Amino acid sequence: MSRRVLVASRNAKKLKELRRILDEAGVAGVEIVGLDDVPAYDEAPETGATFEENALAKARDGAAATGLPCVADDSGIEVDALNGMPGVLSARWAGRHGDDAANNALLLAQLSDVPDERRGGRFVSTCALVVPDGTELVVRGEWPGTIARKPVGEGGFGYDPLFVPDGGSVSAAQLTPAEKDAASHRGRALRQLLPALAALAED
Amino acid sequence: MSRRVLVASRNAKKLKELRRILDEAGVAGVEIVGLDDVPAYDEAPETGATFEENALAKARDGAAATGLPCVADDSGIEVDALNGMPGVLSARWAGRHGDDAANNALLLAQLSDVPDERRGGRFVSTCALVVPDGTELVVRGEWPGTIARKPVGEGGFGYDPLFVPDGGSVSAAQLTPAEKDAASHRGRALRQLLPALAALAED
Repeated sequence: MSRRVLVASRNAKKLKELRRILDEAGVAGVEIVGLDDVPAYDEAPETGATFEENALAKARDGAAATGLPCVADDSGIEVDALNGMPGVLSARWAGRHGDDAANNALLLAQLSDVPDERRGGRFVSTCALVVPDGTELVVRGEWPGTIARKPVGEGGFGYDPLFVPDGGSVSAAQLTPAEKDAASHRGRALRQLLPALAALAED
Repeated sequence: MSRRVLVASRNAKKLKELRRILDEAGVAGVEIVGLDDVPAYDEAPETGATFEENALAKARDGAAATGLPCVADDSGIEVDALNGMPGVLSARWAGRHGDDAANNALLLAQLSDVPDERRGGRFVSTCALVVPDGTELVVRGEWPGTIARKPVGEGGFGYDPLFVPDGGSVSAAQLTPAEKDAASHRGRALRQLLPALAALAED
């Protein structure tokens, strides 16, 4: 029998991503369920000052409400020329939560006069795992790159079309899912959780 | 005969502000002229990473182009919850230069979930004085306060309606010009230039 683990997200792409990473790592015995698969509960608002704070609050809420081990992430893009913002405000940078097109347009406009040598940044993902027995784990993955001058590519989501990972010349939205998992901030963070998830499956 | 000093601005409010501060300090013999009073020249774009860089570039350009001592400022608002941004991008935070209403609305939206205890910030003004003899002076004034949850007041410009200076409960847009000069970031910066301006008048 497999151990159910709640991923505190309704984002189908995030759930698939974690399932792919578990599969690829050969972690068996873990069944990922999303928020749509469990009874509704009051979810923590993402109002923390740090990714860590937000991820941990969401994972604690999910574990407490369902009795399941819970994984939650908070992710965003840190732009050097904006002192690390949009950061925890990435999803609502232009003022409305989840409006990718508006967020991308605003970021481009803010950086319009910023020269190439100052367009560096990174995607950051913080993942928390909270087990009802009291175990808490918080990990961080980073993906360094630069901010392009126009969106490119059709894949991914969020700021992917503007983000050119270091070492290449294509945007994150031009990578295949497998390529993205191997390099991305969320992939790097989630892989740090694999030993703990594998241990849960063996309990 | 008075010594002409160029203030590298077309903002009538900034010119009046400096004239008031000179008058109040009893600095005589300095005639402030604005960019509209001198032959047009190529002005440095404000693309620096710091207020200091922008102010100094503008003052150097003005002095070189006109042969007059030149004062230039770069100012903005630093919000703690945005890691010090909008900063040098204050005037074009929403993407279009000088759209105060859009900038204010965006800042409010970005901070909508930020609790009162994390709404601190400060207005910053950096002023540079460049004299064609080679003298360069760069000074900085700061005005600490908090970011309100809605605009209040009809005076001032920029982010004044959102900014509540520490020690009071009214916004910068509710102060009289004299009250604002006495406390503001730009007043604090400009007053640091008065000895050098007075010395110019005596040359």
